Formats: sequence, structure tokens, C-alpha cells
Amino acid sequence: MPGTTLRPTCPDRPEAVLHPGTKQPVTPDDLAPLFPMALIMQEVSTEPYIEIPEAIRQIYTQWRPSPLHRAHRLEQALDTPARIYYKYEGVSPVGSHKLNTAVAQVYYNKQEGVKKISTETGAGQWGSALALAGAYFGVEIEIFMVKISYQQKPYRRNMMETYGGIIHASPSDLTNAGRSILAKDPNNQGSLGIAISEAVEVAATSGGTIKYSLGSVLNHVLMHQTIIGEEALKQMALADDYPDVVIGCAGGGSNMAGLIFPFVGEARKKGLKTRFLAAEPMACPSLTKGVYAYDFGDTVGMTPLVKMHTLGHDFIPPGIHAGGLRYHGMSPLVSLLHDTGILEAQAFHQISVFDAAVQFARTEGIIPAPESGHAIRAVINEALEAKEAGQERVILFNLSGHGHFDMGAYEAYFSGKLQDYEYPAEAVASAQQRMPQVV
Amino acid sequence: MPGTTLRPTCPDRPEAVLHPGTKQPVTPDDLAPLFPMALIMQEVSTEPYIEIPEAIRQIYTQWRPSPLHRAHRLEQALDTPARIYYKYEGVSPVGSHKLNTAVAQVYYNKQEGVKKISTETGAGQWGSALALAGAYFGVEIEIFMVKISYQQKPYRRNMMETYGGIIHASPSDLTNAGRSILAKDPNNQGSLGIAISEAVEVAATSGGTIKYSLGSVLNHVLMHQTIIGEEALKQMALADDYPDVVIGCAGGGSNMAGLIFPFVGEARKKGLKTRFLAAEPMACPSLTKGVYAYDFGDTVGMTPLVKMHTLGHDFIPPGIHAGGLRYHGMSPLVSLLHDTGILEAQAFHQISVFDAAVQFARTEGIIPAPESGHAIRAVINEALEAKEAGQERVILFNLSGHGHFDMGAYEAYFSGKLQDYEYPAEAVASAQQRMPQVV
Repeated sequence: MPGTTLRPTCPDRPEAVLHPGTKQPVTPDDLAPLFPMALIMQEVSTEPYIEIPEAIRQIYTQWRPSPLHRAHRLEQALDTPARIYYKYEGVSPVGSHKLNTAVAQVYYNKQEGVKKISTETGAGQWGSALALAGAYFGVEIEIFMVKISYQQKPYRRNMMETYGGIIHASPSDLTNAGRSILAKDPNNQGSLGIAISEAVEVAATSGGTIKYSLGSVLNHVLMHQTIIGEEALKQMALADDYPDVVIGCAGGGSNMAGLIFPFVGEARKKGLKTRFLAAEPMACPSLTKGVYAYDFGDTVGMTPLVKMHTLGHDFIPPGIHAGGLRYHGMSPLVSLLHDTGILEAQAFHQISVFDAAVQFARTEGIIPAPESGHAIRAVINEALEAKEAGQERVILFNLSGHGHFDMGAYEAYFSGKLQDYEYPAEAVASAQQRMPQVV
Repeated sequence: MPGTTLRPTCPDRPEAVLHPGTKQPVTPDDLAPLFPMALIMQEVSTEPYIEIPEAIRQIYTQWRPSPLHRAHRLEQALDTPARIYYKYEGVSPVGSHKLNTAVAQVYYNKQEGVKKISTETGAGQWGSALALAGAYFGVEIEIFMVKISYQQKPYRRNMMETYGGIIHASPSDLTNAGRSILAKDPNNQGSLGIAISEAVEVAATSGGTIKYSLGSVLNHVLMHQTIIGEEALKQMALADDYPDVVIGCAGGGSNMAGLIFPFVGEARKKGLKTRFLAAEPMACPSLTKGVYAYDFGDTVGMTPLVKMHTLGHDFIPPGIHAGGLRYHGMSPLVSLLHDTGILEAQAFHQISVFDAAVQFARTEGIIPAPESGHAIRAVINEALEAKEAGQERVILFNLSGHGHFDMGAYEAYFSGKLQDYEYPAEAVASAQQRMPQVV
């Protein structure tokens, strides 16, 4: 297990984060009501490597290094000359990569005496991870869960309860943000942006007793995930192979960044022509259809402004089954990689995603999370392209989690109830008009 | 990964298996309608070790060797001097130990040209495992699922469908066995014994085109699972430690046997005083309350007669949430170990089992299957006893699977809806009268 996590080697540092009120660059002190100082310093650090503390490494040993598998049986089924490798993050006790950063974040909070943390969750992967990390360190976790997921995924809720988390359906009547949204639309089904507004408000108005935690998007979160790619670099070397293309699904961007950043660094260092590919849903295509501009991370406008690919902070995506990819924005670091041409992006319809996920389950045995299914769709397309062209191609992707809590989505797929949604073109223009004005 | 699986070193060979009609010892030919010859020869083999074929080992490498963990955080929470180790079988793609034998069984069937296999499943762990093994080898799998589980656990059903399995609720109207039970009781909720009757009938009346597969109880099934204990022996040696007590939950007996048999052999070889402990439910206590006698493996009386601890072949246990432990009988080899005093047994109420399972989840992170929760209850009791006595005690147990498809049971626990059932004492006497007569 590598002892450090890595920042990406980007062509430039990302542009400054702005205060939501003054529109001036934020200082560490501006962020102090929300985050412990250690995480703020990681957020703004320019160090290439930051050591992982021993207490975190000790917990990681339960499931790390996560396995790197060669998808032999999938390759056979596709009859492709491509060699397909996947890093499997579903081996963590919560079943996804999210626990990597959850453990780190709760650890640093605990170090600074924090006793309670608020957060939001969409599909429930993040909420489960933070609830368990809270149980590990004895820190209370309060979770705002997007209402449609809260209703569709009771077992994910039960999982968070089993870990001792406190869960609310969002929008709730517990916050000003929630109440104002419910006043306009009592049947609002929620979104990640709304849930973020609620969780941020709880921390910001707590007088310092509650901190806030985010499961993706931010620099320090992506950095905690780079252990995935650091391990994969060593594991690919053991396999005596190296990827031509590295693929991840992208919602906020953290699982993909975790895998690809170390390979981006390697490509830069050695002048390699490695391709990098983000797979996202047609229904929420922030990289392929969003604008690259300063926007809020939440719906109400309480968070700092970050420059990112965004569909507009008030965009509420349709209720597709990959809840972890239903976010209006994209991590600033990932957005920058895309903007500079290092990262390609493709968007997929959800039925084609489940076609790929089921083919993967029947060959490799692991039932993928619908989010990870997007990466698998891209992988199978690449493998079939290689076959068509009669080329060798080495493909590496991140299987970010299993789908054990998403079987309702598989049932919908088998019973023909799944629908494809496409983000309408005119919405891009409209989103652009709603961007906050930054001089 | 050890290259062989092991037979247990028992004080005596188990007593002969009898033909259900003639009551005479069965011959391999009697079993040929149900099983491929390779498995029949394993069933009656007296070899101490049988090599695992390369094709099976290749598949095992995806999740084997399974990890052996030290439960440091649980030990701390219990403030016990005991050292607790667990072998975690939930890392298999289907989430339990069942895939070990499923892969082996489908492999040997495939070798003999079998294109379709029938089976039964209670909680769904076994059905999922066989469905996936069928997908691996291109063999069709038809599954009779106990009706109450079929209704309570739709996601487990969806999992089997994802792997391409064909699933029926049992009792069904597809077999004589099912129809005769429904004629007497149209609302019959099913039992493992009934589902076995249906699956056996499908194979026995297929004219040789369909074979039958059982996920526990039989000698060859237990033998396939001994890879668990073989690995654990090596892993304990790496940890420079050795168990004083080895614990497993017991339904049909296969996960427990898989862990303990190699340690039983080691104890015999070296004269060690290792204790062995089976944890079973109060609601279906075949070892602690059943009689040791010849009985049918199924409800209708189609299977051979085996000498085992049994609650009576027509016993239908209450609908507790550990579906994998709701079987009237116990593997003959495990029964013999108990009868000769090598194996202790304890029965637990389900609420106390969930108390233990939740404590485990909050400390170790893994949400246990309710079946495995029985083993954890026994482990925690042992650890608290050691604390009380101020003794060191090294405890090893098998965490046979995760509970991701059992969250409804956790919800019942948290909402206070769980009930404790106890197998009534008078039922033992009654069961004894219903045993088949064997001269």
C-alpha cells in the first residue's frame, strides 16, 4: 500500500475559489466554519505528496490494496484483442471507494476535537461510508439523503442506521434551505445540490460544534482517492503491462480522479500517450454538455464559487438509477483536465449502461453499481473498437463499487421499465444565463 | 491458495447412506440420476486429499485466498483479553462461501456434458452462487426458492436473474411434490425440505438431461469448503497464533465444516485441545434439540436416508431472518462430530444475534449475514467469558457472508419487529415418532 496520496500534475493550478458573497478568493479562515484546518490546508496545498497517517493506514489494511483484476472472461465473451483490467473498490466494507476519503476526513476532524459532522448523500454510497467512518472514530454523523433515493433505497438507509448514522430525507423542514424549497414545491424529490445546501447550513449555523464533509468534488477528497491509482501503477507493473486508456465514471469526479491522476502524472513524466476517458450519464452530462464557468456547488448558493463544468446550480437531473452521478457540477481539477484536452468525456444512455453491467456480471461475477456501469459501457465500446480495428489495446478502469443496494434498478432493467433521458440542448443556453456573475 | 481440499479426520467413517425405497445402502449407480459421477465418487471417497482442478483454481483466484482479519476494534469495544480472528468469505462476488462449491459442482457437471442443473435455495445465497457458476460455465440453472424468501427478498431474486438463473417460488405447481403440498395448504410458505423435493424431482424425472445440485449437507459439498480452513491454517501460522476455539454458524453445516475440519485434523494429528463450536438458531436447533437418526434430506421423502441430527423431515421452521439456517437436518459428517463429542453446539435467539451483528458492523465495518450473526453471538459470548475469567483466549470464526441482501431483517431489528422463537420441547418427541423406520 503506497504511503502517500498524490496531487495530480495539471498543466496549471486550478483557478481560485471565490467567496459566495464577496466574489473574492477565499482564505483558509473563510472555510474554517465548515472544515477542520488540516483538510483546508490539504485543499490549498501545493505539495505533490502528503503522507497518510498511520491510524488511517491501519484501517485501510482491512481492504487495501484493493485487487486489480484482469477481465479474462469478459474479454473472451467480447472476442476482443484488448486486454481489460479493473481496479475493484467494492471490496471496502461499505462497497465503494468512498470509504477511502471518509476515513481520512473523520480522522482529521477527530484530531481537531470535532464530535459531529453533517453531510449529504445521493445514492447513499457516501452516506454509508461516512456513517461507518464515524462509527470507527466515535464521531456522530448526520446525513441529508436526496428524497427520491431515501424512498427508492430503504436498504441503503438501513445500512447507514446499522452504522449508527442519523438520516433525514432532503429537502427537509430542518433547515432554511429545505423549508424554502418545500414552500415552493412541497413534492420536491430533492437533488444533491439541495442536500448540500442543507448539510452546509447545519454546519455553518452550528457555532462551530458541527463540521461539514463532502464526498467528492473538492481537491482534498480527490487527493485521498489517489491511493487507488498509486496502487494500480504498482499492480500494472506486477502484471508487466501498462494501459493505453484509463477509464472512470464521473459524477463529482472523485473515483475517476483517484484512478487517473497518478497515471496522468506518469504520462507527463515519461511523455506517454495514455488516453483518459470520463464516462457520464446522458441525463446529467456536466463534462460533455455543461459550461466551464464559476458556479455554486450547491443549489441555494451557500458554498464558495468554483470554476467547473456545470449544468447550472439549480439543475435537477431526472431520477436515473445512478444516483451518484446526478450532480450538476464536476470537480474543478477534473474540469481543468478536460478543458486542457487531457481528459476525454463520453455520455451514455442508461439502458446501454445496464446492458454492459449485466454482461459484466455474467462474465466477471461482480454486479456493478449503476455508476460503475457507465465506465463498463465505455470499456466494452473501446474493446469492441479494438476488435473492429484488429488492434491490441490495454484498458484499465475503476470498478468503483458493487450494486448490491441497487438491485431495484436491475429489476427495472429486466422488466423493461428503464427509460433513457437526454439533457436537452436548450438547457445549456439557459444554464449559462443562470450562472453567478463574476467580474 | 492450497491446491487440495480435505476430508475431515473423523473418529469413524459416517454410517452408510440408505436408499429411500429399499432402505439398503445406496450404490453410486443409485445416485447417478442426480449427480455426475465425479461428484458421486467424491461423496464416497476415502482419500484424505483430492486435488482441485486448474480450471476451478483459476476462478478461485478472483477472491481466494479470502482474507483472515484480526477483529481489533471489536476486541477493544468488548475490552476483552481474547484475540478474535475471522475468515471473511463475503469477498466472493456473490457475497458468501457458497461459491466455493458452486464453481466446483458446475465444473464437474460441465465435464460430463450436463447442460442444465436444478437446485433449491432458502435465503438465496446458494441460488445466487449456483446461478453465477452456471454463467461462468454456460450451464443453465433452475432454482426453487422457498416462497417466504421469494416474497421477502426480491433483490436476492433479482441477483439470480442478473446471473441468468431461472427462479420459481416453492412450493410451485411445476412438480408433483409442490402440487401435493399446495393441495393440502394453498398458502404454504415453503421450506428448504420442500424446495429440495421439487428440485430433486425435476432432475430425477428428466430422463438424465437435468442433474441436481445441493449447496450443503453432503460430503462432497463440505469437502469443497475445506479450502476455507486450509487457508486459515496457513494464515494463522503467518499471524504466529493458533485458535483455542473455532466457531461457525450451522444450518446444513458446510461453512462451519469448511473452516473447522482442517483444524479438527490438526488437533488429532498434534493432540491439541482445540474446542469446536456450532452456533445455531433456537428456532431450528437440529444439533442441540434434534434426534440423531436416519431421516430424509427432503420433506416428501425422495432423497436417500442419511444418519444425522434432525428435527424431522416434515418440520417447517418459523420464518426467522436467517433463511440459510432453516433446515430440519444437519450434515451427517457434522452430526457425527457432534455425536462423538468433538463439536459443541449452542442455540441462540435471533434478537441477541442481531445485537451481536450490529456491534460487529459498527466496529469491524462489515454488515454480517444474519446466519453469520449466530457465529458472532457465540464469539462475543466467548470473548466476554474470557474477560470475566481474566484469561487469554484465541477465537477464530467464519464470517460466512455479508448481509447486503438482508437489510430488511436489520430494519425489523431496529424497528422492534423481530421476534424470538423457540423450538418447542414436545416437538422433539413428535419428530422422533415420524422418523422413517430403518431396520
